[in-house]
Amino acid sequence: MNLDYIIPNAWSIIEEGFDPNKVKASESIFSLGNGAMGQRANFEERYSGPTFQGSYIAGVYYPDKTRVGWWKNGYPEYFAKVLNAPSWIGINVMINDETLDLYTCKKVENFKRELNMKEGWLFRSFTVTLQNDVEVEVNVKRFLSLTEDEVGAINYEVKPLNSDIKVTFQSYLDSGITNEDTNWDDQFWDTQDVVQDGEKAFIKAKTMKTEFHTCTFMESRIFLNGTSVESNAEVDKTSNKIAFTYAQDAKQGETVAIHKFGGYTVDRNHDKDQLINAASSVLDTAVNAGFSNLLESQKEAWAKIWDMADITIDGDLKAQQGIRFNIFHLNQTYLGTDPQLNIGPKGFTGEKYGGSTYWDTEAYCIPFYMATKDQSVARMLLTYRYKHLEKAIENAEKLGFKNGAALYPMVTMNGEECHNEWEITFEEIHRNGAIAFAIYNYFRYTGDFSYVPEMGLEVLIGIARFWHQRATFSTYRNKYVILGVTGPNEYENNINNNWYTNYIAQWCIKYAAECIDKVEADYNTDYTRVMNKAKLSKAEVKEWLEVANNMYFPHSEEHNVFLQQDGFLDKELITVADLDKSQRPINQKWSWDRILRSPYIKQADTLQGFYFFEDHFSTEELERHFDFYEPFTVHESSLSPCVHSIQAAKLDRMEQAYTFYLRTSRLDLDDYNHEVHEGLHITSMAGTWMSIVEGFGGMRVKDNMLTFEPRIPEQWEGYSFKVNFRNQILKVIVNQGKTHFEVDGDQDLQIVVNGENVTISPNNLVTV
Amino acid sequence: MNLDYIIPNAWSIIEEGFDPNKVKASESIFSLGNGAMGQRANFEERYSGPTFQGSYIAGVYYPDKTRVGWWKNGYPEYFAKVLNAPSWIGINVMINDETLDLYTCKKVENFKRELNMKEGWLFRSFTVTLQNDVEVEVNVKRFLSLTEDEVGAINYEVKPLNSDIKVTFQSYLDSGITNEDTNWDDQFWDTQDVVQDGEKAFIKAKTMKTEFHTCTFMESRIFLNGTSVESNAEVDKTSNKIAFTYAQDAKQGETVAIHKFGGYTVDRNHDKDQLINAASSVLDTAVNAGFSNLLESQKEAWAKIWDMADITIDGDLKAQQGIRFNIFHLNQTYLGTDPQLNIGPKGFTGEKYGGSTYWDTEAYCIPFYMATKDQSVARMLLTYRYKHLEKAIENAEKLGFKNGAALYPMVTMNGEECHNEWEITFEEIHRNGAIAFAIYNYFRYTGDFSYVPEMGLEVLIGIARFWHQRATFSTYRNKYVILGVTGPNEYENNINNNWYTNYIAQWCIKYAAECIDKVEADYNTDYTRVMNKAKLSKAEVKEWLEVANNMYFPHSEEHNVFLQQDGFLDKELITVADLDKSQRPINQKWSWDRILRSPYIKQADTLQGFYFFEDHFSTEELERHFDFYEPFTVHESSLSPCVHSIQAAKLDRMEQAYTFYLRTSRLDLDDYNHEVHEGLHITSMAGTWMSIVEGFGGMRVKDNMLTFEPRIPEQWEGYSFKVNFRNQILKVIVNQGKTHFEVDGDQDLQIVVNGENVTISPNNLVTV
Repeated sequence: MNLDYIIPNAWSIIEEGFDPNKVKASESIFSLGNGAMGQRANFEERYSGPTFQGSYIAGVYYPDKTRVGWWKNGYPEYFAKVLNAPSWIGINVMINDETLDLYTCKKVENFKRELNMKEGWLFRSFTVTLQNDVEVEVNVKRFLSLTEDEVGAINYEVKPLNSDIKVTFQSYLDSGITNEDTNWDDQFWDTQDVVQDGEKAFIKAKTMKTEFHTCTFMESRIFLNGTSVESNAEVDKTSNKIAFTYAQDAKQGETVAIHKFGGYTVDRNHDKDQLINAASSVLDTAVNAGFSNLLESQKEAWAKIWDMADITIDGDLKAQQGIRFNIFHLNQTYLGTDPQLNIGPKGFTGEKYGGSTYWDTEAYCIPFYMATKDQSVARMLLTYRYKHLEKAIENAEKLGFKNGAALYPMVTMNGEECHNEWEITFEEIHRNGAIAFAIYNYFRYTGDFSYVPEMGLEVLIGIARFWHQRATFSTYRNKYVILGVTGPNEYENNINNNWYTNYIAQWCIKYAAECIDKVEADYNTDYTRVMNKAKLSKAEVKEWLEVANNMYFPHSEEHNVFLQQDGFLDKELITVADLDKSQRPINQKWSWDRILRSPYIKQADTLQGFYFFEDHFSTEELERHFDFYEPFTVHESSLSPCVHSIQAAKLDRMEQAYTFYLRTSRLDLDDYNHEVHEGLHITSMAGTWMSIVEGFGGMRVKDNMLTFEPRIPEQWEGYSFKVNFRNQILKVIVNQGKTHFEVDGDQDLQIVVNGENVTISPNNLVTV
Repeated sequence: MNLDYIIPNAWSIIEEGFDPNKVKASESIFSLGNGAMGQRANFEERYSGPTFQGSYIAGVYYPDKTRVGWWKNGYPEYFAKVLNAPSWIGINVMINDETLDLYTCKKVENFKRELNMKEGWLFRSFTVTLQNDVEVEVNVKRFLSLTEDEVGAINYEVKPLNSDIKVTFQSYLDSGITNEDTNWDDQFWDTQDVVQDGEKAFIKAKTMKTEFHTCTFMESRIFLNGTSVESNAEVDKTSNKIAFTYAQDAKQGETVAIHKFGGYTVDRNHDKDQLINAASSVLDTAVNAGFSNLLESQKEAWAKIWDMADITIDGDLKAQQGIRFNIFHLNQTYLGTDPQLNIGPKGFTGEKYGGSTYWDTEAYCIPFYMATKDQSVARMLLTYRYKHLEKAIENAEKLGFKNGAALYPMVTMNGEECHNEWEITFEEIHRNGAIAFAIYNYFRYTGDFSYVPEMGLEVLIGIARFWHQRATFSTYRNKYVILGVTGPNEYENNINNNWYTNYIAQWCIKYAAECIDKVEADYNTDYTRVMNKAKLSKAEVKEWLEVANNMYFPHSEEHNVFLQQDGFLDKELITVADLDKSQRPINQKWSWDRILRSPYIKQADTLQGFYFFEDHFSTEELERHFDFYEPFTVHESSLSPCVHSIQAAKLDRMEQAYTFYLRTSRLDLDDYNHEVHEGLHITSMAGTWMSIVEGFGGMRVKDNMLTFEPRIPEQWEGYSFKVNFRNQILKVIVNQGKTHFEVDGDQDLQIVVNGENVTISPNNLVTV
């Protein structure tokens, strides 16, 4: 834990007091998003202190030329960069012609930020004394509308406290922005037009190379003591900026406000020649509704989300705040409304990593979206990969594979690989497994097999072909081996026979074969279509199975565990507990070679396999492997603690499960990894949700039924969550000693609680 | 073999006919150097076709900011770049005011280049018809003086063939040059002054960041039919260029010539404020001597080098040309006169790789310089590393080592590491072994142990400490292991227990311990000094030996060979012969992961160990390992064929030895690796020399005696070489069936030929 300034609160993230050193961290933590766009919590008014400016439009990226010291064959040409977009939030504020700037003013008092997660808005207030000795109170509320997802709104209020003043608002759009993260200092945006149309302003800009066309827009209204006033704006226009300047006198104690509406229209949703028209219409809707009405709709929209997705925790305010913070940001990032979008690892909170889609989506995010939204959302995420199948096949071809073998990229925007460390891009191939597993997981949870014949089977075939070709026969072992990989634990590179990779490879082939049989039996038209398209024969499937059935798995007889990889026991097996704290985090303290030859595990690797395939192993086996690997795990990936939390809970180690839970849920709030200023860890937030539902709640799906083994950490009085299971909404409430179930719908739901069958009738609380 | 245009000749490299597509290759092959400076064979006159301009000053480099996709802790801040220096060779030639440009003229006939290796000059002649229909004959001779190593000279002659003409020579200096190879398009040179002083011109320029101060200079004379003529130059000066323009009328058949003298003075040799004075004085010497006299001195200087270094081959012109080409370029690159210099992998022929010192120096170059020059040269190369010991200790500290452990850099200019691939920089640690081996090798060959107490022991201690700390104990194997390394075969990364690395680590520790004992016994003052300085105790040495004596070596019982690394037998062991030719070279055809999991070996790895430590193994063992590893070796490193050639010869496989010999000796002449346009492979040229002396000649040093097992490929009638052994010069002449030895000196030399002791008396040819 490296930061401890966020005030615990059940529904809000609150910061009190102004500290310029925390500005970048707070800009991440208080970020806003609505699935279609998002922004870091930058100030509207000028701020000359250290800041990291970021506004992002979903799906708009730049193919930055790959930067690399030594080129390797097969590296992608570009790295898709999350792009800082033209800014619409800017409002310079002049008090008697002195510019308000919290970094240079005389005094800031009563500074407060609140990110209200229940209602989806960001509030900031402070009292400031300027160099000219004028004292004003400022209150700013901002939100990005969920209902009108192309628009956001700001209510910026200024109240003079010690004199009558002139308040000047200079409300602007700016496309002269840069990225912090650029490989070659390329210019990313080409501003095409800066347009004024009455009270509206527009900047048309397209991204270089990718040619995403966007229109950034704004319209403002001025209020005195809550009443709209006519205010003739002075307009300034340059090649990449347009500003409307409004001057308004205010007596001491009066309140001057600007309501600013702004946002983006993009050519993903509109004809590129119609972007200004579309923007104009969006502005009309927003301005006509007004700030208050838009905000009301916002509250209603968030209420609907929370009704399904909320998790309550009683008796532990920080834990409660943590889980809601995670659920809130997940919903700010991705709402499942656009099939071209996915869940970027930093969402709309920073630039790092680039690309939008990692195996995080399949391994961590799908369970959350599957259980808290309509199942069509998870299906849409699967479809996203289906649409990238052709590119995945091309990607595999670049690495020498053939015959339709598919290797999904490590990082992508449009299906093409855009990461370039050989040990990751070429070798962290287990990602293919997670994509197949998600297909299985979707079917297991929803019972909807139709995705497989329609689309999934082609994906499974491409993946099975990849594993079949990637495994090689070792005469020495008389088994198939998979050489030169990086497992989920990225602190090992180019290893042989990573157990997790070999296991999921074997499973992928078997599952593909199983699905082929099932589709042949039940969906004959699809079967014929797919087999023809893939040019797949039964003989080929037999060859796959030959590999799967003779896969080698490294194992230690001495420890009676599967080995993470060949040679793991050659390491100096000093546990993390025995490692000097000054050496942590090792990824900041040690050179890469030292990390590689150490036994330390960045995130669940063998245990990731035990997580995915829990039902393939006994609890005793899980315990043995957990006891062997957990002591070497440094959890230096955001994706690590959740899996360990779930498994610790399963093993009734509640104190450990709780510690891991706090670490995952408050990773960013408490900045465990010293990097919150760069943005939030969005995808791992789904892991936090899993820690409660699958960890403490012990929820699984077995034989088409939800099963539960509820547990509760002793720090908690109770907790509750809801899941959407096959179109029935089940609420689960766990108190000390008791669990209550309630189903929302008109049918009975059969579930299994601690091994016992329980029938939940509609609208009838059942206590177990 | 990818190029076949160089005309075979015993003493010259000759190209006939003008082909713009070969210009870059020829610019490399015909490069000139004199140890202090060098240049690609760029044309003096303007050339608008594809060219790679390069002039280089020994020891002058630029610390280009490291470029890398993903930073790893421990990466060096910079990559030392071989720097294209200001050019002094430029002479624009105007014929009746039309600029001569071979790329745009009407016709080029009788084009010829000759690099005369015997005398050390470059000649070019051609007949050209310009667009203005004037036909002229041009003859150009250029050399870089060995005797006055700051100056070079050009004689540029023009003879009109079909009319009377005006010839204009515009002789210039230019510091507005760029590097092809720059990470960030930095400007590398800061031009400080452009000075005219009568007929002399100077450009003072310093490198950015490193602040090497240089003065580039020139002075010219004009001749008509061999007689000096007064010619008032017109002078043009810009901020980074100065040109003297001479106009001279010539009747049809007359010859107009410019003799241009130019070069560099640098602050390594002069006070930086005296560079122009020093340059002026150099010019006075050169101009007073004149082109012909300077050339005479050049011939004499090269004659001395050849007298000692020449190798003759009878009956195989291409082989003869190849070996002389190698010996010539080695001597152009490094003459052993300056302790701050070393042998860069591309010498003065290109920019690639950067840095000047690799393990190539110790592993490949020292034997050549030791045998063909005074032993002080090899000692100077050893001293170079001694002077870098402190930096090597700092380098190891960056990677977490302590207590004076030293890791020499993979690539360096001044002792600091400047390469940044983690798998090389951090893991290709065997380079430390070659540095220790060179100390042993120097003593073995020269009998001079004094280097060890004076300097070498400290180096050996630092290296032994490194290996002691780098090895870790495997409880599983009950042995010490070395995890996470890259061996000489860079087609394997992050492997465990590379046999070569483990073996040389063991040897380093044992040799260091042996030297400590010897210094204690025979050089007590040095012993005390070194032990105090290194804070070394006997107990620590005992700990080292504990590691060395319990080192693990991977071994296959089935094949009865040491394994290149753990898990080597898991690979698909398909030999190179069975690999489709379309897949070669694999480093251009395959992605990196595919290379890594293949069994293919870039250059001798296990066999490198058998080369260094041949006397540790029986010939049967060598044969077994050669038979096991050679079939998997793709020789995609320039350093590979020579070791295989030597071992094939040792095993009496003469046809194979000969094939490898041709490959190593004509690697660049015939462009085996498709890259000669980037520059030559200088360090591997020493391996070519070894292929003959150690391979066919079978020369070794055992028990303070030279031993020989001479062999001859059937393609040859005979060959001869000379070695300087402990200040006696032995000439070895091998004919079909017989070997002749002759010693130049006043003492008998005892040698061993095919196991028999032979006494060679001075100046008396002994035939065996």
